[in-house]
Amino acid sequence: MLQHPPARQRAVDTLPGPYLLFLGDTTEPGYAKTAYGLRDWAPERCIGEFRCEGATVTTGLRVLTPAQAVAAGARSLVIGVANPGGHIPEAWLDSLVLALEAGLDIVSGMHVRLGTISLLRNTAAGFGRSLIDVRQPPASIKVASGHRRPGKRLLTVGTDCALGKKYTALALARAFTQRGIDADFRASGQTGIMIAGGGIPMDAVVSDFAAGAAELLSPDAAPDHWDVIEGQGSLFHPAYAGVSLALLHGSQPDVVVVCHQPGRERVLGHPAYAVPSIEDTLALNLQLGGRTNPGIRCGGVSLNTSQLDASGAERLLASESDRLGYAVADPVRGGQAFERLVTDCLA
Amino acid sequence: MLQHPPARQRAVDTLPGPYLLFLGDTTEPGYAKTAYGLRDWAPERCIGEFRCEGATVTTGLRVLTPAQAVAAGARSLVIGVANPGGHIPEAWLDSLVLALEAGLDIVSGMHVRLGTISLLRNTAAGFGRSLIDVRQPPASIKVASGHRRPGKRLLTVGTDCALGKKYTALALARAFTQRGIDADFRASGQTGIMIAGGGIPMDAVVSDFAAGAAELLSPDAAPDHWDVIEGQGSLFHPAYAGVSLALLHGSQPDVVVVCHQPGRERVLGHPAYAVPSIEDTLALNLQLGGRTNPGIRCGGVSLNTSQLDASGAERLLASESDRLGYAVADPVRGGQAFERLVTDCLA
Repeated sequence: MLQHPPARQRAVDTLPGPYLLFLGDTTEPGYAKTAYGLRDWAPERCIGEFRCEGATVTTGLRVLTPAQAVAAGARSLVIGVANPGGHIPEAWLDSLVLALEAGLDIVSGMHVRLGTISLLRNTAAGFGRSLIDVRQPPASIKVASGHRRPGKRLLTVGTDCALGKKYTALALARAFTQRGIDADFRASGQTGIMIAGGGIPMDAVVSDFAAGAAELLSPDAAPDHWDVIEGQGSLFHPAYAGVSLALLHGSQPDVVVVCHQPGRERVLGHPAYAVPSIEDTLALNLQLGGRTNPGIRCGGVSLNTSQLDASGAERLLASESDRLGYAVADPVRGGQAFERLVTDCLA
Repeated sequence: MLQHPPARQRAVDTLPGPYLLFLGDTTEPGYAKTAYGLRDWAPERCIGEFRCEGATVTTGLRVLTPAQAVAAGARSLVIGVANPGGHIPEAWLDSLVLALEAGLDIVSGMHVRLGTISLLRNTAAGFGRSLIDVRQPPASIKVASGHRRPGKRLLTVGTDCALGKKYTALALARAFTQRGIDADFRASGQTGIMIAGGGIPMDAVVSDFAAGAAELLSPDAAPDHWDVIEGQGSLFHPAYAGVSLALLHGSQPDVVVVCHQPGRERVLGHPAYAVPSIEDTLALNLQLGGRTNPGIRCGGVSLNTSQLDASGAERLLASESDRLGYAVADPVRGGQAFERLVTDCLA
């Protein structure tokens, strides 16, 4: 059995909200997916944003100092950016101390535990504030069995990190529910866990147990129940492919939806690596996913068209659907293309 | 940065030897690879074996009680079996307590830390004995960069767990050295670490850092230096494929050698899964390994023919070499076939 520290599985309702979203000194929008995810899927909990000098990324929420946020009702500062490696740079510490001094708790989905940073530990203790880490896997994960589980499962997979796998899974789970289907969103990363109130941070699990964690994430269910599972990374990613493969094997998906961002040509943070094509990504996921679920199939493609205007996006979705022979939609834009994607996933 | 507990990287010379090898209550020889590995690659450190009632696995070394082993000079009991999940069954505890009482330290490569088991912790404290965990990754692992590193690398890959990847890597590293080539064996599992005196237990690394750990395991080297890296698991394994892929990506091997045990038809511990063919295993490793080293090639095939007699093994090695078009050898048997494998790996 694994000797993880005791689990601190927190439902999102137990996290102290509303939140002030912290963007650090980030200049790369791809790293701010936690802040964007909370803004878009839990807007009632987000009261504003706070940045270090030099940051260029913004959520579009009003900019507040910690003191202003407290006056407006905020109860915690949520670290809304995830650097590669999940560490907390020196440059953030002054801002985090300011938040604690102003009366905010700190909520983090980083790998590093907030309490291991002595400045934060001491400041939090001095001001009676809490340091809350959500990137903490449960203590009871076993090695994957590979046994097929009842219930239906959909996994979002990607050509790269940070291009829409969580959004797509959230949107599909919501759409399934709206069609009267019993469905759950299953969060595999820190932002999804903050939104859903539960889940397993796959990338923080010891690697021998990673596929077992994925099995635990979408347990036995009724035959017509759907788990819509948030994907991680990419099978082509030079650092994270092992996480993606463990999640694919353990999820045993009946359906995969391939997520891609048109125009993303180089792997985020690894510019020596080209982003694979949608077709190659789909083929490899079907090839490897077939090991634990021989019935795996493609439900369609999700494109993040946030960098296109509405008509450009519509043309691209249509032409990609013609080219690939699958439903192709942008869940953020919705519309008929997305309805077709939902229908094809459930077919 | 990762918050692993402080590293306790021990050179094997600092482990208290000679060892009494503990086989638990094991009846599955495949689980006793630690004991077999130490017997075969560090025989001068192995003084005998000790088993629970009901065990059927043996190393062939003389059977000693802990008290007899102490009288014969043993200084520690090494847990020589690795169950799936790396836990310590209740049934072993009486034997382990007996060893501590007799004056032996305990050395473990299991996932669970010995000191987390209160009976062992208290008994060790009471008798002034040490509990030593070698399955502990270093504290400073980073996310993989994917940057190509100078030096040459060979990775042993497999159709399943526990069928010869470590043996093959040890034998190839020794053969390279005997041919005057500057080569190092790089251990990725607990037994290899006990034999080599260093390495990284890949399966104990947090999954986000697994490929980074593999990069750390075979660092920058001189252009004509060879790292011969011990493989883990299989890309087809329903529980461990993610570990195998992270090790493949991070190792960036120039050469892979496919390891297989003829007659192994079902995945060890996962009988619902067929063992893949040598050809499929090779093809998938070349396909996925090409992502971080496009020059990856096959050096040949290593067969574990321990269940055949000498003439049967020779015939099989020859016919498999004809069939596959690669050098095929059993490193334990050596001979001309193995010399050809060595030559082809270096070609």
